[in-house]
This record gives sequence, structure tokens and C-alpha cells, in this order.
Amino acid sequence: MRELKFSESVRSLEPFFRPRSVAIIGASPKQKKVGYVIAKNFAKSFKGKFFMVNPTAQEIFGHRSYPSIKSVPEEVDLAVIAVPAPVVPEVLEECGEKGAKAAIVISGGFKEVGGDGAKLEEELAGVARRYGIRLMGPNCMGVFDSDSMVDTLFIPRYRLKRPPKGGISFISQSGASGIAFLDWAAGERIGISKFASYGNAADVSEADLLEFLAADEETRVIAMYLEGIKDGRKFVKVVGQASRVKPVLVLKAGSTISGARAALSHTGALAGSDEVFDAVVKQTGMIRVYDWEEMFDFARVLAYQPAAKGDRVAVVTNGGGAGVMIADEIEKLGLRLAELGERTHAELKAKFPSHVVVNNPVDLTGDADNERYSVAIKAVLADEGVDSLLLVCIPHTPAVDLESFVDVVMDSWSKWGKPLVVCLPGGRVSLELREIFEDRGVPTYPTPRRAARSLYALAKYGKSKS
Amino acid sequence: MRELKFSESVRSLEPFFRPRSVAIIGASPKQKKVGYVIAKNFAKSFKGKFFMVNPTAQEIFGHRSYPSIKSVPEEVDLAVIAVPAPVVPEVLEECGEKGAKAAIVISGGFKEVGGDGAKLEEELAGVARRYGIRLMGPNCMGVFDSDSMVDTLFIPRYRLKRPPKGGISFISQSGASGIAFLDWAAGERIGISKFASYGNAADVSEADLLEFLAADEETRVIAMYLEGIKDGRKFVKVVGQASRVKPVLVLKAGSTISGARAALSHTGALAGSDEVFDAVVKQTGMIRVYDWEEMFDFARVLAYQPAAKGDRVAVVTNGGGAGVMIADEIEKLGLRLAELGERTHAELKAKFPSHVVVNNPVDLTGDADNERYSVAIKAVLADEGVDSLLLVCIPHTPAVDLESFVDVVMDSWSKWGKPLVVCLPGGRVSLELREIFEDRGVPTYPTPRRAARSLYALAKYGKSKS
Repeated sequence: MRELKFSESVRSLEPFFRPRSVAIIGASPKQKKVGYVIAKNFAKSFKGKFFMVNPTAQEIFGHRSYPSIKSVPEEVDLAVIAVPAPVVPEVLEECGEKGAKAAIVISGGFKEVGGDGAKLEEELAGVARRYGIRLMGPNCMGVFDSDSMVDTLFIPRYRLKRPPKGGISFISQSGASGIAFLDWAAGERIGISKFASYGNAADVSEADLLEFLAADEETRVIAMYLEGIKDGRKFVKVVGQASRVKPVLVLKAGSTISGARAALSHTGALAGSDEVFDAVVKQTGMIRVYDWEEMFDFARVLAYQPAAKGDRVAVVTNGGGAGVMIADEIEKLGLRLAELGERTHAELKAKFPSHVVVNNPVDLTGDADNERYSVAIKAVLADEGVDSLLLVCIPHTPAVDLESFVDVVMDSWSKWGKPLVVCLPGGRVSLELREIFEDRGVPTYPTPRRAARSLYALAKYGKSKS
Repeated sequence: MRELKFSESVRSLEPFFRPRSVAIIGASPKQKKVGYVIAKNFAKSFKGKFFMVNPTAQEIFGHRSYPSIKSVPEEVDLAVIAVPAPVVPEVLEECGEKGAKAAIVISGGFKEVGGDGAKLEEELAGVARRYGIRLMGPNCMGVFDSDSMVDTLFIPRYRLKRPPKGGISFISQSGASGIAFLDWAAGERIGISKFASYGNAADVSEADLLEFLAADEETRVIAMYLEGIKDGRKFVKVVGQASRVKPVLVLKAGSTISGARAALSHTGALAGSDEVFDAVVKQTGMIRVYDWEEMFDFARVLAYQPAAKGDRVAVVTNGGGAGVMIADEIEKLGLRLAELGERTHAELKAKFPSHVVVNNPVDLTGDADNERYSVAIKAVLADEGVDSLLLVCIPHTPAVDLESFVDVVMDSWSKWGKPLVVCLPGGRVSLELREIFEDRGVPTYPTPRRAARSLYALAKYGKSKS
């Protein structure tokens, strides 16, 4: 990994994700309250110390409650604030006096409601500056960290499952988009490292978070949902640096006139010109996606597979139709079907029955068994003209031995260090195989197009790194 | 429905899907044999009469076996033939003498292997012509009909689930693509009427099947996977007629140079110029898709929802980010965000708290409950400037009452006769709601883009019908 020249301010974001101690201000014993769900989250799973703060409660599910953060008997790194907007500046003042380093303001009722709310937000930002507290929010979902288990998401777990630990970190300007993404990841057992929904961005912005995640060792892929950008110059600089050390995926909504108008009434974001944004994408090496599905598809492959050293893809399939569709897609994406070397060609010709198509796509045909797959995988990966492998299996054909298929593929593939993605179309049987592959770090896709596109992401990232 | 001017030959395809009696020639008592699986399928679920034909067996799972079709004591409409290629012409000859009306030749070893195989296929086609037997195949998966339960798919059901009854019929030039599609439909409980994989098309072609399905009352949507077209002139004529009475979706692979080359080694199809095909699509009113996922997405919405009368889409959401993405997508697809009428605007303003965004997208915001959804749905559907509704729900927000959500939506929507699609992103909770909607005929999608694209299919079909 190249050396990073990030600003000192990166360190100041650590307490959001790895605080030693947290005060939950507005913790509540009453179900349905935001402060109840957050307090429960910390009580259930946070790995550090936490303190409930609520002046009208003696205790909250057996944990002592303090009347204010100032009465907490130990140091506090992070304050999570979920009290009505008008008292938030005053509460943050107390956090400052206490020496807290960071605060997440969940409460809404600030700039997003206009007028007095905007003034209140200015006041809030002023307090933060005065005390040197980093401030996330207001009007946000805050943070989920799968390691420290900071979890300020005020949606109970029976509604919103938390995903397992993994290498994808996600920043979202939209709270709802953020939680939908997390729940989806949980459902598909995709590992997440850190999540941050930063709301009105009174202090901490998308660029700050990006900078932090670029330097974060647990984060292998950064995924962002954006509508507008707060400080364009800073964003461009930080994204350019981040993209040199790890893949940065961006879903930038508001790319049309209708979308930009909708963004303005949603987060008040000025979406800006989409041409300009595209130029930034090109210049910085970000990878732009246009849908949550694509963000997931790309994030998975980039988190688990090595970058492709080039754009020459080998395809091995037992279904000719899928091979044709992949060939189409590869050409459309500007990738290439690898030209198999003479030795590879001769070897496959010698080992396979005459009805097997020894071109690329290698069509093993419908009677292909696991052994035929193994021979083909090894031969094409040994070929120096091949940069990556797209494997297709229609697992319904009886010759495929389902019991050992994943093992056979993994064994044939593992030593070559070239990226692999698998396309497994169909219902139950396909889904079962897909889960086993995913658990072993091989991304799988139900359609030829999505599989081919994911290889495109790997090739694109490989190119921007080189 | 407009009157159809289809050729008389349509009737001649009936015995493939609705035979009164079937002879399974090559039925086998030995597991792993193709003739075993097919015989099992008929024994288990076929609604008409069937006869096992195998000269070396006395009985096959308790069913009497006849030495040849000629010894079957009753009339035979359809012969299913799964015997080695060299004896197929002779067997078909016997079918002719017996008076069978149609035959499906599952066996491979014909034109696809070249040389002698091609000659054998010519011979076979000659026999069929001589006796006036309609011939499907050779080298095909044959037919699945969810009503009569003709099922010649030689993949056992523990590997390949059969989908439930429904309105989508599917023709596939590729056998593997066909079974992947069926299994996927089964997994997602999507209803299929008829399926045909026609292999080498020695007699029955994609155009014949298309014509048949266009006239078939149980088929509401026709979906096709094609690599090449046998008789371009006939195809164009039939597709044009079919598209006037029901939606025809086409996934045409081999659209690039690489893909066309792969198609040639797969089915021997000459993919032809993609520009020409696009012109045909435009001229005939077919809807072209580029991926299996899209084919499914479109087929579901076209099978269950009325065509949109225009391109003006209303969006109701509790997540602003999804609204922004949908607004983008709608503009990119050439649809329009409906402009809400003054009355609608005033009504929503009066009934909703001030933080609700009363534009289109209507952003009910994260605290929206079922009642707020109900009011919004009724108001926008009553608006004459609205042709269709795209409803988004982030179901994780606690204000949504999951128990009654689907009922509330269905009640608010049902009387207006305008198409509805629902976007429900996320994991478990979303999937559960999606299933309930789907069972009630409302297509659902996990992402804004896929939901918006499905409405595009409805609008496009509505336009081509008008």
C-alpha cells in the first residue's frame, strides 16, 4: 500500500468508531423512544464503557443513569445525543466542558426544517468549534461499527438486522438508503466494517469520512451514497488519494434534472452538473455505480478478490447460452475475451471429447462433470494470456456433482492468484452453491451480465492502481 | 383483444402442449437415463394418458411397457423420443404409421455434431414431412406445460424445480438458459404457462411457437431467448402480429462480434446484424431486454399489471434517497414524473405535517405510518395527470405497521385501475413483504432502478398497443 498523506484531522474521527467510553445523552427506559433503542444497542453489544445520561431516570435497564454528562465519573470519548433540538446546543456545551472528543447528534429539527432550525444548527456548530469537538449530524442515523459495536442506529434489530464483520465500509448522505443497504448486507451475510450516515454535515462531511476510511486498515472497499458534495475541492483531493489505496465506489444520485430537483427537497443538496461529476470520477479513479444492486455486486468482488492485472477474461461454462451473453457483455464493457494460447488449446483438445468447444468461452457443454471443470480451470489459469476467470455453472445438469463442486473449483483455482467470479443462475440449488462460494470469498452472481460487470470493476480498479 | 390472422399451422402445435395421449419412446427403468426421468415425470403428473415404449422392458415403475409405438392399443397424439440418434428416423417412421400428430426428439447427435449427424437430421425431417408429423428438436429439452403437465425436461425435480401455473410462456433456443429460467421462476414462485426448448429446429421454429403462444389464451406474456433466427421474414411477420395482442419480450444474445462468434459455436446460429435486429424490434413492438434479470422483472410486471395509459409516473416514498434515484431513472428512461394537480397538492398539504414533501416524488419521510401512505396513494391515483404509481417503502422505519401494510396499500390502490409497482429494499423484513405483494399480483423490486425500469416496460407496452 502506498504511503498516505492524510491530514491530521483523520485522527480526530477515531472516537466515532473506536471510542473507549460513550455517553448516551437522552437514553430512555421508554420503548419506542429513539433513546431507548440506542441505549439498548449499547447495553447489548458495545465493547467499551458506556454511561446512560437522563436527568429524570434513576436507572435504565439496570444501568445507572446520570443527570448530565458532567456527572459521569470517568472520561468520555464520544457523546451520542438524542434530545429535542432546542436543548442540543446546551447539551453539547456540557460535552465540551466534560472534555468529550466527538459527538453524534441524532436529533432532527435543524437546517432541514429551515428558519430557526438553521440558526440552531449554526449555534451548534459554533459550540463544537469552540470546544474542538468533532460533530456528526445533526439529523442523522450516525454510526455502526461491526468491531467496536458503536451502534447508534435507532431502528430495533428485529426490523433492521446488523451485518457481520467484513471489509466494506459505507458512507451515506441518506439515512434510509443507508439502513436499506445495511439490512440487505445482513440478509446476504455480506461483511461490513463501518457505516456512517452524517445527516446535515454541520461539521463532519463526506470528505472527512472518506479520508478516515482510506486510512482505516479494516476497510478494504469504500462505498458512498451521495446527493450533493459539501466542499468540491476537498472532496476531489481526498477521493483521488483514497482511490490510490483502495477502491472507492460512488452512487451519486441527482444526476438528471428531475433527480436534482428531488435531491434539493430531500437533503437540500445541490446536485451539481453530472458532466462535472463524471469528469471528477474519471480524474480521481473512483468507480461510479448507478444502482444499489450494482454497488453491492462491485463491493463484494472488490472486497474479496484481487484486482485484475489486465482486461483479458477467460470464460468456462456448461451452458452455451450463458457463454454467448457473457461474450456480448465483455465486448460492450470494453474488456476482452482472452485468446487462449496454443499450448492451452492443444491440452484441452487432447483431454476433452470432440463436442466440447475449445475456444473462449470454453463451452464444456451440458454433460460436463466436475473433472472437466477442473481440467479447464487449471488450463486457462495457467495461460499467460488470461487475467481473470468467469466461471458459469448451470448446476441442474445431472453430470455436475453438487457435493464436491465448490471444492473442485476452489482447489483448481486457488494457486493462480487470478481473480475468479462465478455465475450460477437458477433457484434453490444455485442459491445453495452460491452461499458456499460466498463464504469462501468467491463472489457469485445469478446472471451473466452481473458477473461480467463485476469483473469489469476488478479490471477497472486494477488499471487505476497500476 | 384484436382479431388474429394466424396461419392454420397454429393448430398443429396443440399436441405438443395439450395432447390427450403420449407415447414415451425410450422410457427406461434405469435411473440416470434420460428416458427414466422423462417417464417418471409423466407417471407423476401428466393429466392425460401415457404409454411407455421400450422393447427390452416388461414394465416401467408398474406401467406396462410396449415394444413399439405400433403396439400401443390406443391412439397417440404426441411421441416423446429419447433413443440413440441412428434409430430415431426409423422410430419416427413408426410414429407416422401409428398416426401420431407430433413428436419431440430429445436425442442429440444430429446437425449439431456436423457431417453424418446433419444427414441424419435431413432424413428425420423428411420422415416428418412425409407423414405430416410436427417435429420439435432434435437435440432439445422439449416442453413443459404447467396445466397439462407435459414435462419432457430430463432433469430430475430435486435438481430442477418446476414453477407454478401462471401467465408467462417462454421459448428458448438454448436448453441450459431455458432450465435456469424455469428453476429461477420456481424459486421465486413466478407462474409459467408453457415452456419450449426447440433445439435444432428441424421443423418447429421460434416463429411457429411464437404464433402458437400469441393465440394461446393462457399465455399473457411471451418471453424468448434467441441467438439466431431461422426465417427472418416469417419471424418479423409473426412477431408484429403477436405484439399487437400481448407483450413479447426478447433476449437476443450474440449482439456483439464476440457474442456472435460464441453463438456460432453454441447453436450454430448466425446472429445477424444487431442494428437490423434493433430495427425489427422497433418496427414490431417487441420489448428487448439484455439480461435474464431484466426479462424476469419485465415479464412479472407485464403478466400481472395493466398496461400504463401514458408515461406520467407518480412516486410515493418514505425514503428521500430512493425518490431521488427513481427521479433520475425515470428521466433517463424517457418517462416523466407526473405533475400533481392543484387539487391533489392542496389536499396533501392540508392532511400532512409540514415536513412532508408534497411534490412528486411525494416524500412522506421516515416517520410515515400506514395512514399517511393510504392518503397519499389515494390522492395521487385520483389525479388525472397520473398514469402509474411507483411506491417505495423502507420497511425498517418503526412507524410502518408491517402487519397491515400490504392490506392498506392494496385497499388504497385497487379501485383505480392504474398500474402499481413496489420498491422494497433491504433484507428479511423486505423479502417477507415482497412475497405478500407478489402473491397478490403486485410486482416488487429491491432497487429503485429495477422498479422504475419495470414501469418503463408497462408504458412501452401501453404505447405499442395504443
